[in-house]
Amino acid sequence: MAEKTLQEMIMALRKGAGRLSSSSDKERQDALLAVASALDSSREIIRKANEEDLKAAEERGIQPALLKRLAFTDEKIDSSIQGLRELCQLPDPIGRTLEKRELDPGFVLERVSFPIGVIAMIFEARPDALVQIAGLSLRSGNAVVLKGGSEARNTNRALVSIISEAAGSDWILGVESHEDVNTLLGMDKYIDLVIPRGSNAFVRYVMEHTRIPVIGHADGICAVYIDASANVDMALRIAVDSKTQYPAACNAAETFLVHKDIAPEFLPKLAARFSELGVKVHADDTAIVYMPEAQKAVPSDFDTEFLSLECAVKVVSSIDEAVEHIAEHSSHHTDAIVTGSEESKRFFFQNVDSADVFCNCSTRFADGFRFGLGAEVGISTGKIHARGPVGLSGLMTSKWLLTGHGETVAEYSGKNGKQFHHKELI
Amino acid sequence: MAEKTLQEMIMALRKGAGRLSSSSDKERQDALLAVASALDSSREIIRKANEEDLKAAEERGIQPALLKRLAFTDEKIDSSIQGLRELCQLPDPIGRTLEKRELDPGFVLERVSFPIGVIAMIFEARPDALVQIAGLSLRSGNAVVLKGGSEARNTNRALVSIISEAAGSDWILGVESHEDVNTLLGMDKYIDLVIPRGSNAFVRYVMEHTRIPVIGHADGICAVYIDASANVDMALRIAVDSKTQYPAACNAAETFLVHKDIAPEFLPKLAARFSELGVKVHADDTAIVYMPEAQKAVPSDFDTEFLSLECAVKVVSSIDEAVEHIAEHSSHHTDAIVTGSEESKRFFFQNVDSADVFCNCSTRFADGFRFGLGAEVGISTGKIHARGPVGLSGLMTSKWLLTGHGETVAEYSGKNGKQFHHKELI
Repeated sequence: MAEKTLQEMIMALRKGAGRLSSSSDKERQDALLAVASALDSSREIIRKANEEDLKAAEERGIQPALLKRLAFTDEKIDSSIQGLRELCQLPDPIGRTLEKRELDPGFVLERVSFPIGVIAMIFEARPDALVQIAGLSLRSGNAVVLKGGSEARNTNRALVSIISEAAGSDWILGVESHEDVNTLLGMDKYIDLVIPRGSNAFVRYVMEHTRIPVIGHADGICAVYIDASANVDMALRIAVDSKTQYPAACNAAETFLVHKDIAPEFLPKLAARFSELGVKVHADDTAIVYMPEAQKAVPSDFDTEFLSLECAVKVVSSIDEAVEHIAEHSSHHTDAIVTGSEESKRFFFQNVDSADVFCNCSTRFADGFRFGLGAEVGISTGKIHARGPVGLSGLMTSKWLLTGHGETVAEYSGKNGKQFHHKELI
Repeated sequence: MAEKTLQEMIMALRKGAGRLSSSSDKERQDALLAVASALDSSREIIRKANEEDLKAAEERGIQPALLKRLAFTDEKIDSSIQGLRELCQLPDPIGRTLEKRELDPGFVLERVSFPIGVIAMIFEARPDALVQIAGLSLRSGNAVVLKGGSEARNTNRALVSIISEAAGSDWILGVESHEDVNTLLGMDKYIDLVIPRGSNAFVRYVMEHTRIPVIGHADGICAVYIDASANVDMALRIAVDSKTQYPAACNAAETFLVHKDIAPEFLPKLAARFSELGVKVHADDTAIVYMPEAQKAVPSDFDTEFLSLECAVKVVSSIDEAVEHIAEHSSHHTDAIVTGSEESKRFFFQNVDSADVFCNCSTRFADGFRFGLGAEVGISTGKIHARGPVGLSGLMTSKWLLTGHGETVAEYSGKNGKQFHHKELI
């Protein structure tokens, strides 16, 4: 018997998506709990598969940080199981009434939430991401094609097999080769959405090689603006957290914009803290006066996502200049203001057009879990469909349902035609 | 002085978009009313420009139907003015709170609606569409680049100039050449969304030649399924309206699926009505028995958007077969069931994955105005961002606003870290 082609498998997945979209809340909750139990009872299988991946990675001399991400420890399995159980607690995302309007007595229009269909997720090495993404897809009634990092091949294969056995195989498909990714990107007839998670270069590659809508972000150049009226201690705390709490994250700050009136007090203290913490500073001509250890900034420093203990600092003469700098240089992911002034906060919230705009807190809060979305499928810096941390709702579309009693448009046409009364019902 | 390039003009438009996004409801309402007054007092200018276009079109021997669309009569100006005034009545789409959640006491997250930014609208000949689209953009705080049909060049130019004089020129730009369209499609850094309205071939061309997100629909292959339990008179009324009330519209029905149990009674009556109305029928082998005037259907008839007094008819043996046919052949724009059974309605609503799913009414109701959306920028058959008739809300994105008091992620990390309480505030 000939093997199924990837296209045939994806077409089968569309049928699975159809079945899942009409399943009950209870059925999807039960399936999630079944996956959670199966993971719990398959720890030995998972451990063996993960050991193979870890061994191969070590042999290839992979970096310790990556090795740590690759390891699917008992603790991570516990937390994956916990995550699946929490997904069950979230309200059913399918069939929620988003709008309801009577067009005329008894002629009722409703817009209800509905799964998107078939989603392709292409992500990096972490096996826990696979479980989370599969869980979000199942909860939201979407079929999913998963392409994980090749370093985690054995672990991912084991996980897809455990999940399929527990919750059916018609809605989940794991693919492994880079070639398969290119095939997927060409299947705009069968795949409704692509969510890439990985390096900037990879996300850009995906965006440029497919006609399927893509949700993702390529850059995270986040700025913190310290207003003239900021509390200096608070500003220091936020600057340090935004830059150093996890510098490799996309929501870490790369740029600090400091109002000239607070610069003489704030910058020497920031320089001292950053020096203690080993943060390398690229300072503009005004800032460098207060930060003698800093390196002189070149223009490109303000367009760089350092992703490490390194940042750019600029003194601005007004909040307008800060907002303009952000408009020009930020990647519109997350930008924050530290201020004691309600007016400055309002101006910043109004005029900064980024996915996340924060006041008096760290940029690192930009995250689906911290936002209370349950879990996140990614962070979108695009403006279409979803923006910022994307939870279950980003995996939903809607459909319009209209119920009449034989109404025709002809009756509602012409000068003597019936008129719509358009009465909102919610 | 060198003329500005299109790119410079679009970059200037981004600034205008920024200004408009932070304008007050009152400012945008006043601007709309100013445009309405300006149109009213510039009728003579509009008439002259439109006469030039009509004369040129006649000389080129344009079809009478197109000529009628091109004519911007006093009646159409009245209705455009009326439309602008109605837009003022709609609630302000900017700054609506979509979600609000306390992450921890006093640490409040809010998701608010915000304009998308710069939208490119590329549409066909009708000058009234230009006024409607400009009005929707202004109401929603978006800057807009408008490329109208070249047949309406003089009228469009006059309208853009009247609108700019009345409401400022920094948010609206008219472009005229086909070359400009290609330049626009390449400007994914500066344009946030493209909405093409025109022929299928044109919409497809746009989708295939840009990395900017596109909202649009290429095909409208809509089906009406007549269930076994349908009221025959109602089914006839709906079939006639769906097919003949305006056959050139994308929401006109192209396919009729008829349950075998009702076919012997329904189809001869449908054949008689369609014969009176001049509707040409392509019937499958079973249907043709009851519709002797019909032509034998070939498979491609069920994948054809006739857009004229022509349709395809097929007898199905179950509602499942109807739903499967729709899954395979419909363009997922609008599909309707006529039924007397609540269970059939539920099954159809659940299992048909189209933008609009109707019960016991004409497919022709799929329209932003009829849906009560105020006006429509188009109809989306895509599933991402907007689906079905797209009103003001399709021109909006959102941003997340988070206000704290110095919170850092470090405080919320580790085993003894603070916990989020995630309390919903709306």
